[in-house]
Amino acid sequence: MALIVQKYGGTSVGSPERIKNVARRVARWQGQGHQVVVVVSAMSGETNRLIALAKEVQANPEPRELDVMVSTGEQVTIALLTMALVDLGLKARSYTGGQVRILTDSAYTKARIVKIDEDKLRADLSDGYIIVVAGFQGEDEGGNITTLGRGGSDTTGVALAAALKADECQIYTDVDGVYTTDPRIVPEARRLNTITFEEMLEMASLGSKVLQIRSVEFAGKYRVKLRVLSSFEEEGAGTLITFEEDDKMEQATISGIAFNRDEAKITILGVPDRPGIAYQILGPVGDANIDVDMIVQNVGHDGLTDFSFTVHRNDYQKVLGILKPVAAHIKAREVQGGDKIAKVSIVGVGMRSHAGIASTAFRTLAEEGINIQMISTSEIKISVVIDEKYMELAVRVLHKAFGLDQPQ
Amino acid sequence: MALIVQKYGGTSVGSPERIKNVARRVARWQGQGHQVVVVVSAMSGETNRLIALAKEVQANPEPRELDVMVSTGEQVTIALLTMALVDLGLKARSYTGGQVRILTDSAYTKARIVKIDEDKLRADLSDGYIIVVAGFQGEDEGGNITTLGRGGSDTTGVALAAALKADECQIYTDVDGVYTTDPRIVPEARRLNTITFEEMLEMASLGSKVLQIRSVEFAGKYRVKLRVLSSFEEEGAGTLITFEEDDKMEQATISGIAFNRDEAKITILGVPDRPGIAYQILGPVGDANIDVDMIVQNVGHDGLTDFSFTVHRNDYQKVLGILKPVAAHIKAREVQGGDKIAKVSIVGVGMRSHAGIASTAFRTLAEEGINIQMISTSEIKISVVIDEKYMELAVRVLHKAFGLDQPQ
Repeated sequence: MALIVQKYGGTSVGSPERIKNVARRVARWQGQGHQVVVVVSAMSGETNRLIALAKEVQANPEPRELDVMVSTGEQVTIALLTMALVDLGLKARSYTGGQVRILTDSAYTKARIVKIDEDKLRADLSDGYIIVVAGFQGEDEGGNITTLGRGGSDTTGVALAAALKADECQIYTDVDGVYTTDPRIVPEARRLNTITFEEMLEMASLGSKVLQIRSVEFAGKYRVKLRVLSSFEEEGAGTLITFEEDDKMEQATISGIAFNRDEAKITILGVPDRPGIAYQILGPVGDANIDVDMIVQNVGHDGLTDFSFTVHRNDYQKVLGILKPVAAHIKAREVQGGDKIAKVSIVGVGMRSHAGIASTAFRTLAEEGINIQMISTSEIKISVVIDEKYMELAVRVLHKAFGLDQPQ
Repeated sequence: MALIVQKYGGTSVGSPERIKNVARRVARWQGQGHQVVVVVSAMSGETNRLIALAKEVQANPEPRELDVMVSTGEQVTIALLTMALVDLGLKARSYTGGQVRILTDSAYTKARIVKIDEDKLRADLSDGYIIVVAGFQGEDEGGNITTLGRGGSDTTGVALAAALKADECQIYTDVDGVYTTDPRIVPEARRLNTITFEEMLEMASLGSKVLQIRSVEFAGKYRVKLRVLSSFEEEGAGTLITFEEDDKMEQATISGIAFNRDEAKITILGVPDRPGIAYQILGPVGDANIDVDMIVQNVGHDGLTDFSFTVHRNDYQKVLGILKPVAAHIKAREVQGGDKIAKVSIVGVGMRSHAGIASTAFRTLAEEGINIQMISTSEIKISVVIDEKYMELAVRVLHKAFGLDQPQ
């Protein structure tokens, strides 16, 4: 007998019929002798409907009250799923975040979990109840309702699994696991049976939007076994997210090819090569609340260097506007940029010990005549910026070059 | 400076625009130096939408979970109204029933208020906040969400007014007060400046659906000054519901003419006149969860009597079916009935000391050729059952006969 925490997202509980399907799935797990805690999101579309309603009343809704309002979305789902479970003849009970109690800080709309009281849940589990908990929400010390921000239901699932020392936290979604790359681009893409937390972090942040990055970090920190599964398929073991050391022997060199075409690049040419210059350039960008992704600066010569970085494509024009006066002030030669770029990343814990990965990647791209505009690397990732029009081609040839189309 | 509790129903908060109107009205009261606690219902239609959704999942929704779900309706409204108040530059804060905390028993879907912790509200009021509380809901000792049943928001308003020892509890609705009768039937009907609690109870239960009868009982018990006002008109003092002894001198003899055409009458003729016979007849009706309104039994003769009562028209056929075997069992002669009837009632605390009221009423009806089928009286009410087709006429002539069309 295991203690399992399952999380179902908005699409999985998007209609009464789908909620009944989830109930049947939960019932099967319990029928196999497991204790089950279920975390649910709001029905798909509900959170956006509530936010739109709030904005009709107040253009920038008061954060405390927005949380009071938006948290009702999950509250409706926990009640519906519990009804569906009771209708199957099972003992089930719902809990809002506050009822659990999931204690958070007071940062409305983006609160962080501080502590979970698991006593009531444990007692209910011992009494044979299935527990249904509202994701995405909690309450602060003063009893005010808080929400964890978008995607917070994954975090609730992981946090509950950590508090209850669950055997596994299963995240049900509309894909059946983590793939070596997007199957829409590479039909041969393969589902990974396992992936390490570090790889998952790189894959998630690079656009494989399977799991909220925050919940993965959380799972890593508390060493919760996470599994991604499809809520629409009856069978399948999904992808288990593991701790590197547990499974190092089995790791392939490369786990996947991630990509992102939402970025734009900016280069400041002929920047005086002196201390503090990077801050003078990126300080104003950060002050404007614009996130910077890749940052590349090569060694300078003749007292000058070139400084490049990427931002979300939506921020491109704004950043150019910010940097024109900055460039003039620091006496740089020119600001250039482009928003017709894509980022492609090769991810794998195995690359740490394999020097040849980078050269294989660069040779593969060169053979297809794809020019590399920027390169950035971490311990388990190599990212390149290329012309947007070559993105699919680059993903396909890299996927093949690293043998990802072969059975694991 | 007074402490005012205001309650706004579902129609009054039925859209973002109407919620903003409520906010402006609340702001004016606070601007006059009053402390204001606002109780709101769910936006009109929302409670029914949620119940329908629940029934799609479970035909007879689990009561505990139905309360978890339905209580979200008011939770959305408190957030929206608080946003609207903050948008006007005011300090405001919302509370769910559980957050207040409004402690109830555990009778899901029809809980009763046990106790209200008013400490947090008092502290907020002292700090200059307008408090917005979700009506209709609370939580039990175990922290489970409960609802008070339909119309429970009025009860929340009155209970909060009692707990806070408020100077007045104002119930805003879509009418501007309590009338001498329905203005749609008698255009000369007049708004009453005051009405006693006892009269209000008789008027409410007789179909003047201005206030939930339970909240009136509650107000009477805790001696809360209740006032009914229109949420759609800027001016007007509404109707104040008073304690009889406070205002006896000012009381008119008759306060109003109530009526109800939703009833049906049933008579069992030739019933053996012996102890226990009323129970033998009404026991099976009560067992079927059918509410009985008027009950009339006259003195018998020759060992036989006739027994009559009224029920809701929807229950008429069911009651006939129940009583046929009962009549045979007790050896009554016959079961008769009719659902083309109406009940008209004359209500007024003044009638206690005025013997002539009944004769005036009966003479007035006789002059119009209206036959009285049943008569029932209480200390402050005379009810008659007549043919449905004469109902409007009866209301009009009685309204005039008792001078209700004259200024108070």
